[in-house]
Amino acid sequence: MKELRVSLGTRSYPIVIGRDLLDGIGPRVLEALPASRGARGAAVITDSRVCGLYLQRVLASLQKVGLAVTDIQIPEGEQHKNLAWLALIYDRLIEARIERTSPIVALGGGVIGDLAGFAAATILRGVPLIQVPTTLLAQVDASIGGKTAINHAAGKNLIGAFHQPRLVVTDVSTLSTLPRRELVAGFAEVVKYAVILDPELFGVLESKSAVLLKQDADLLADVVATCCRLKVMVVEEDEREGDYRAILNFGHTIGHAIEALTEYREFLHGEAVAIGMACACRLSRRRGLISAADERRVVELLAAFGLPTRVPGDFKPAQVAIAIEADKKAAGGKIKFVAVEEIGRTRFEPLSASEIATAIRE
Amino acid sequence: MKELRVSLGTRSYPIVIGRDLLDGIGPRVLEALPASRGARGAAVITDSRVCGLYLQRVLASLQKVGLAVTDIQIPEGEQHKNLAWLALIYDRLIEARIERTSPIVALGGGVIGDLAGFAAATILRGVPLIQVPTTLLAQVDASIGGKTAINHAAGKNLIGAFHQPRLVVTDVSTLSTLPRRELVAGFAEVVKYAVILDPELFGVLESKSAVLLKQDADLLADVVATCCRLKVMVVEEDEREGDYRAILNFGHTIGHAIEALTEYREFLHGEAVAIGMACACRLSRRRGLISAADERRVVELLAAFGLPTRVPGDFKPAQVAIAIEADKKAAGGKIKFVAVEEIGRTRFEPLSASEIATAIRE
Repeated sequence: MKELRVSLGTRSYPIVIGRDLLDGIGPRVLEALPASRGARGAAVITDSRVCGLYLQRVLASLQKVGLAVTDIQIPEGEQHKNLAWLALIYDRLIEARIERTSPIVALGGGVIGDLAGFAAATILRGVPLIQVPTTLLAQVDASIGGKTAINHAAGKNLIGAFHQPRLVVTDVSTLSTLPRRELVAGFAEVVKYAVILDPELFGVLESKSAVLLKQDADLLADVVATCCRLKVMVVEEDEREGDYRAILNFGHTIGHAIEALTEYREFLHGEAVAIGMACACRLSRRRGLISAADERRVVELLAAFGLPTRVPGDFKPAQVAIAIEADKKAAGGKIKFVAVEEIGRTRFEPLSASEIATAIRE
Repeated sequence: MKELRVSLGTRSYPIVIGRDLLDGIGPRVLEALPASRGARGAAVITDSRVCGLYLQRVLASLQKVGLAVTDIQIPEGEQHKNLAWLALIYDRLIEARIERTSPIVALGGGVIGDLAGFAAATILRGVPLIQVPTTLLAQVDASIGGKTAINHAAGKNLIGAFHQPRLVVTDVSTLSTLPRRELVAGFAEVVKYAVILDPELFGVLESKSAVLLKQDADLLADVVATCCRLKVMVVEEDEREGDYRAILNFGHTIGHAIEALTEYREFLHGEAVAIGMACACRLSRRRGLISAADERRVVELLAAFGLPTRVPGDFKPAQVAIAIEADKKAAGGKIKFVAVEEIGRTRFEPLSASEIATAIRE
């Protein structure tokens, strides 16, 4: 078991990473809450897939430490991360007479983390949040850093808040029940950390991709912990995405455009990001940054994990440019395109949406 | 014109208080935004009463400094401070392609400040908020301190966020169009500050209540500025209502119960708080705290402003106790009953809901 700490002054919190952690979650939750204010209630928010797998163990452990727990289940899927389901969560939390000291436990993937996280950020103007990510993507990314959000018909994550959790419990054993395609998609974000920040991790991934895909639990825990450490470093540097945190968007400018153009139906987020990273490397090489050899290593590593690396053939550059523009607006009006100088080193490259779109088709 | 500053580290901001400030609001808004990130858009959120009075002046001034402004109007009244109208605001802001740097201007009373403030706290995970309060209540209370919220069917302000404004523009000239009953209700919060924190202000109010009710603009600006200064002091001490900020709830434990029992139809917030303060003084005297003479001074000052001081005769203590309990739950499980030791000095008194309810009937 590993424990990291996110240092953000009064909003600091631990991340516990290991195997078989769910049965012992109760005492950890109690420990993470301010000692002076005894919580008697708690809520666990989860989805229809995860609830059958892990909810009972989490409930039992929380009840064992004396918490009266309400559980709220949301149907699985990104399409439920919206205002209507948030309203239902509010109703249920208020019905359960949640108090300001009552923790909300987000048990699930990124959708649950974002949705339950936003509910925790806003019910009674904020209650303690515990993230318990059960997908690889959520474990290495969404559960850390305090971004919470819901989608709007016009775009993803347009409504949200920064609300740091009080504790993140990352049980890699839960990945054993993850559909293979989702596990693979999660590795896209793992590769991302290696490309932008950690050549050593990149080497480990190159030599161990097959073992990781077979879910060697110890190696998986090591790799997840390394990714978490990198994300923590970035978040500590730039909690609210002033500038630096935007390096985490490597591969996402094009990835988001691909997701939007396929209406979020054809690719998982990680798959679209994998394509986006491959394109970003190509663009970086054409601008005289990354070497052809390093570009090839990135593309081959993505392929070794079974991730796609090519933009679907039927996209027109103009469509891609429009999608990038729309995403840019949502992100606050600026494209911070992350280019790669070499594996482990990036820089922001001033590129217009149409330059990006044209280049990825060449 | 007076300018105060709320010092909260990176979340610090100025409060400008004076007469005829609306026509010059554009340059002030620009100045309050981070220089490095040029905003080109802005939104003004207001209600159906205020829009006919002041919207055009605010829009004109913002347009004059080059901002493309969208205005959003909400029907007047507390019943519109809910998730449905918030959803409409989100739609309109997204339609208008709001960016992270675009300020939202809340032009109106406490309802608009809370609703527009919560929208600003959560759209794109937070955009700059400018408070332009046009009621006495909002000028001395709601516009300062960063509390934003919407109501839920089960209670007021159950959903919300802390989101400090970047600027508060308090134009006392706008009070001239305020219905008399609302002006009077606003003075309840003014009296509150005097009772809990400022014997000197209490003296001014005693000698000048008639002049204030006639809206002597200079005196009004002075008194509003004094109240703002007191609120700023409390907020700086305790931004997120750990403990100390709860002294601002003087009169509110009973006040909220009265509002809830009359379904928010019979009394304005300030009127209910006036009754609550009179009761809290009586309770304080019975516990050997405030003197009978000081209690009388408080009740007489409230009456001088035309405020009610007695609990409606048809309330039963049990009803009041239940309402206090419900409010306590919403507030996070604890009653922090604010008792008065003498004018200008208070303390938290451990009292159960039923003790409070019984005492106010005696």
